[in-house]
Amino acid sequence: MYNLKNDYSNGCHPSILKRLIDTNDTSQEGYGVDEYSKEAKQLLMAKVGNPKAKVFFASGGTQANLLVIAALLKSHEAVISVKTGHISCHEAGAIESIGHKIITVDSEDGKLKPSSIEEALKRHDLSPHVVKPKMIYISNATELGTFYTRKELRQLSQFCKVHELFVFMDGARLGNALRAKGNDLSMNDISTWTDVFSIGGTKNGGLLGEAIIFNQAGLAVDFDILLKQKGALLSKSRVFGVQFLELFKDDLYFSLAEKANHMAIKLAKALQNEIGCPFLMEPTTNQIFPILPNEWVRILEQNQRFHVWKTLDDQYSAVRMMTSWNTQDGEIDLLIKELKEYNNDNE
Amino acid sequence: MYNLKNDYSNGCHPSILKRLIDTNDTSQEGYGVDEYSKEAKQLLMAKVGNPKAKVFFASGGTQANLLVIAALLKSHEAVISVKTGHISCHEAGAIESIGHKIITVDSEDGKLKPSSIEEALKRHDLSPHVVKPKMIYISNATELGTFYTRKELRQLSQFCKVHELFVFMDGARLGNALRAKGNDLSMNDISTWTDVFSIGGTKNGGLLGEAIIFNQAGLAVDFDILLKQKGALLSKSRVFGVQFLELFKDDLYFSLAEKANHMAIKLAKALQNEIGCPFLMEPTTNQIFPILPNEWVRILEQNQRFHVWKTLDDQYSAVRMMTSWNTQDGEIDLLIKELKEYNNDNE
Amino acid sequence: MYNLKNDYSNGCHPSILKRLIDTNDTSQEGYGVDEYSKEAKQLLMAKVGNPKAKVFFASGGTQANLLVIAALLKSHEAVISVKTGHISCHEAGAIESIGHKIITVDSEDGKLKPSSIEEALKRHDLSPHVVKPKMIYISNATELGTFYTRKELRQLSQFCKVHELFVFMDGARLGNALRAKGNDLSMNDISTWTDVFSIGGTKNGGLLGEAIIFNQAGLAVDFDILLKQKGALLSKSRVFGVQFLELFKDDLYFSLAEKANHMAIKLAKALQNEIGCPFLMEPTTNQIFPILPNEWVRILEQNQRFHVWKTLDDQYSAVRMMTSWNTQDGEIDLLIKELKEYNNDNE
Amino acid sequence: MYNLKNDYSNGCHPSILKRLIDTNDTSQEGYGVDEYSKEAKQLLMAKVGNPKAKVFFASGGTQANLLVIAALLKSHEAVISVKTGHISCHEAGAIESIGHKIITVDSEDGKLKPSSIEEALKRHDLSPHVVKPKMIYISNATELGTFYTRKELRQLSQFCKVHELFVFMDGARLGNALRAKGNDLSMNDISTWTDVFSIGGTKNGGLLGEAIIFNQAGLAVDFDILLKQKGALLSKSRVFGVQFLELFKDDLYFSLAEKANHMAIKLAKALQNEIGCPFLMEPTTNQIFPILPNEWVRILEQNQRFHVWKTLDDQYSAVRMMTSWNTQDGEIDLLIKELKEYNNDNE
Repeated sequence: MYNLKNDYSNGCHPSILKRLIDTNDTSQEGYGVDEYSKEAKQLLMAKVGNPKAKVFFASGGTQANLLVIAALLKSHEAVISVKTGHISCHEAGAIESIGHKIITVDSEDGKLKPSSIEEALKRHDLSPHVVKPKMIYISNATELGTFYTRKELRQLSQFCKVHELFVFMDGARLGNALRAKGNDLSMNDISTWTDVFSIGGTKNGGLLGEAIIFNQAGLAVDFDILLKQKGALLSKSRVFGVQFLELFKDDLYFSLAEKANHMAIKLAKALQNEIGCPFLMEPTTNQIFPILPNEWVRILEQNQRFHVWKTLDDQYSAVRMMTSWNTQDGEIDLLIKELKEYNNDNE
Repeated sequence: MYNLKNDYSNGCHPSILKRLIDTNDTSQEGYGVDEYSKEAKQLLMAKVGNPKAKVFFASGGTQANLLVIAALLKSHEAVISVKTGHISCHEAGAIESIGHKIITVDSEDGKLKPSSIEEALKRHDLSPHVVKPKMIYISNATELGTFYTRKELRQLSQFCKVHELFVFMDGARLGNALRAKGNDLSMNDISTWTDVFSIGGTKNGGLLGEAIIFNQAGLAVDFDILLKQKGALLSKSRVFGVQFLELFKDDLYFSLAEKANHMAIKLAKALQNEIGCPFLMEPTTNQIFPILPNEWVRILEQNQRFHVWKTLDDQYSAVRMMTSWNTQDGEIDLLIKELKEYNNDNE
Repeated sequence: MYNLKNDYSNGCHPSILKRLIDTNDTSQEGYGVDEYSKEAKQLLMAKVGNPKAKVFFASGGTQANLLVIAALLKSHEAVISVKTGHISCHEAGAIESIGHKIITVDSEDGKLKPSSIEEALKRHDLSPHVVKPKMIYISNATELGTFYTRKELRQLSQFCKVHELFVFMDGARLGNALRAKGNDLSMNDISTWTDVFSIGGTKNGGLLGEAIIFNQAGLAVDFDILLKQKGALLSKSRVFGVQFLELFKDDLYFSLAEKANHMAIKLAKALQNEIGCPFLMEPTTNQIFPILPNEWVRILEQNQRFHVWKTLDDQYSAVRMMTSWNTQDGEIDLLIKELKEYNNDNE
Repeated sequence: MYNLKNDYSNGCHPSILKRLIDTNDTSQEGYGVDEYSKEAKQLLMAKVGNPKAKVFFASGGTQANLLVIAALLKSHEAVISVKTGHISCHEAGAIESIGHKIITVDSEDGKLKPSSIEEALKRHDLSPHVVKPKMIYISNATELGTFYTRKELRQLSQFCKVHELFVFMDGARLGNALRAKGNDLSMNDISTWTDVFSIGGTKNGGLLGEAIIFNQAGLAVDFDILLKQKGALLSKSRVFGVQFLELFKDDLYFSLAEKANHMAIKLAKALQNEIGCPFLMEPTTNQIFPILPNEWVRILEQNQRFHVWKTLDDQYSAVRMMTSWNTQDGEIDLLIKELKEYNNDNE
């Protein structure tokens, strides 16, 4: 049984475990000010190329998202997201739980556009009867596996500046976006055009952990108290420091993302070229959404783990297949072989 | 420089790292239902001797506390704690942040007594102008290093039953309590006389992680959604499972706690017998509170890490010295030697 | 200038002010237990025909809605509403502010249907990654001026019982619904098929005040503490008691609603019959939504107060015209005359 | 039976009801921008002598308090109050319910002093493990009937400026404070030395309503949205405007407060001079705390309504007797007569 259901089924990259062992016996301060965390923060600031940035660590994506939103929004302020945005769909009401409305807009490709934000602002012009939109939330890569180009992010950023909206990029799969074919966005661009963004460690080689990067120090004042208050500050914070040191030393983070993307694209190309399979979304990162006959889906489910994204009709469904840094060539080859057999049987 | 400031300065017990490596390549479901977590939960249920218990994991003590309180209290309900209780003093307003008042009462020894609860209930009889007390929060061991006996816990439990109050025991240092000299409380007793309790992994051999044990399944309904909502559910939840499996296999957890206690008591005895040092609180677990001349404190601070708990007067302060499972005999011996020298100089 | 913008522009029914004067000098307990409030609660229980009901008062609709939802939902639970529902659109994030997600579904006519709830439940089957739907919110009359029939409410109720969802009816304009032509729903039906509902006083003759009626006493436990906590409990609670006594004595409440409806229907019929004006929604209560040429709208706005609901295209818009218990025949006649003139000019 | 239990048992000053009738038929905008509210706000700004002030209205004291604190504090920030402060004791957890910890300090006379604030700040220097104190809450008059002098308020204000703490004065009984014998504080002083304060209408002639005055416009940005979100914005906001217009026209507000104080002092003097009764607190405003034999208390309770504040010992209790603007000379005279009889019996 191979696994294309998600990118967190296995443990972490072995070099992280090795470093945890190597550093295990040193005595460190806790709660975020251990030496490894400090060093990792410096390293990330250098990668981002923004000496004014402030870096923090959280355990997971939902935690990072709720912390950032709690830090930047006042009670009456709201965040704009596409409907498929992670905060809107898959965080069990985490954002509402800290008091904020998520204003959702439609999007075909999972990306937020200035025109949609504008429409959301218009829907919220009846003050004081409506919340005040004050932030946009975007994911890169998105929940549909797509990514933002430089031009797109710059335009979003400019639009938001004019309308006094914070730009928050959820980078749970940032490596996959930045290593996608066609990507022209750099870490420094992101630091320039967002107010705050996260870098997901858990789904790209880490054991647990997301880095949160505020691009202006002023936005991060007292953020450590908020971390503590929301239960996010680990006493043995070295766990985060060690991981991010290892992931960003020699850009391991990016080479792992590249490998995950490579596996997904290899699978996508085989599906397209050898089976003529259409896709819900152009495949670019480690999440691809082939459209398969429902009959195949039923058979595949018996020895594959993947997610049925959307039943299109009686005949077809879009499925989500997700690769990770430790997806093996053999797994992909076997799957392609199996699908080709179905295809031959059908013809 | 030796460290008696806290019990989380070092990494974790080596066997945990070893097991993380051994299990790293297996593919697992995430978000709490990996095999290791399932197995660890079974193991904890067996240790507790309560087949109706429901077990969950969280990253740290503050997170565990806020989750339990969010799960059991309604908006208008409050929790009673001693003033030195962790939720009251050192969680950056985590409990208030989720909407609940903490009703505090005085306590000399860090333990909550029925008489104090009764007084708190009386102070809150002016409904609807006051919150409704609905839970007591106790720590075992307490923040003052003391522990609850069977009789004390049973009496608290009976009192709370009559007054319809939930009993929640924060076990961030439960191992130290249960291995203290004079303790007669078992895991099963705790499961019988509390509604919910936690078992701290982080401060007793773990890397991160607390187990939360609801002693009636009915109290834990949908608790996994709450974990997700508050950012506590790890995608690679195996991290928790592996740790608790290792800690509770062969009772490593308790032998580590015993060692920490042993080191503290060794230090305490030397202070009492060889220097005649008084204590703020009778030393019983891994936190001791010797009363030292302020002058010694100033000198000691130069090559020791510890916490000045309370300045008593111009002459004396109570300090908190804390040992852990990996405190070394040599550290304690050196400290005793140093203090004896001060003492000789003074005489 | 006449006013068809809303139904709260004027003061209250004169008999309420008279009774406030008559009762002004009596000395009363406060915070909800004055004699007038007690008597009004008895009167409402009798009108509802449910001796198990528990009645409370709040100042306004948003307050009533947030209180009910805070009382019945746990942290991880959510409420389902149509997109045009008041809690979703026009309460400035009140529900999210107390921690709950509103799951919205589409509806042409402002009414929630079992099929939409079913679809919402399906969208939320990925526990623990999603909130748990636990309540439906419906308005009667709806924000589009429509109302629920007996059959519709019974079916909703039955569906919700099966799926363990609370049924909450916002009756800010309940009088208008219950006095609409074609209505077959009684107060007792509502008490039978909802768990909790409100009766709006402010918009139907009152000065301020909504009654909240829990149809099972068990749901209302400690609700008075919640009222206090959310700032809703008035010390001079007699203000509410006096109003509801006056409104429900001799069914003044219903005769006022009938008058408001009558004015709206008179206007609607003239628009349909004499001008051939289409409507966004069949006019039935005191809110009607005629579709007018944009040119007329621009002229009308100069001496009329009303709300442009939706710009349909370059030519036409749907406007919302709202009558109240003190809308005068003369106002409606003048408006009809004016619109007929536009119509003649156009032909 | 006379009533000295509270100052809200009767209705409102007759001139308010008269004005409600006079203005009842005018058509007004709602939700805070009716003409009466606008005019009342102008009037209050003039009384306060601060053209930069921003004025809002809320229904009651708890609502006003929670709104102000929600507006000014961030998630991790806390408010300092004396233990007897209304937000700490008698608001059913309203402040915690919106997420903020109340840091309490002891005070004999109900007044907060710089030394107590300093001690609270010291207790909260262990960032990030503790909330950040960011506001002080004071009541004037206090819950013990005492009041702040110019010197005291100026010193508090200066201390808070240095420590970057907001100063919030709860003026639920502001009239009584400003008309107390010995008071030298003016409305303008309050506007100068606080960041925000409230003026209670309900307990001093009004039906319901508190004015909230922000002394710098910058602190009040979007406060109307917050009012709406917390359920505090009335659609018929004219109710507030009319009341405050009437109360502050010709300083009715202050003459009513003076009368309430006069009645309390008359009673206090009789108790002191004719019975030799001691007081828990020097009587200065409309709340007095005579110390009476428990036996008298038991008899008095049969035909008097008052509050037993504190049982001092087997023999004596301090009771709270409260007068209002419509307490009658006759009531006070009868009470004095009754107490003198007890006294004679005892001698």
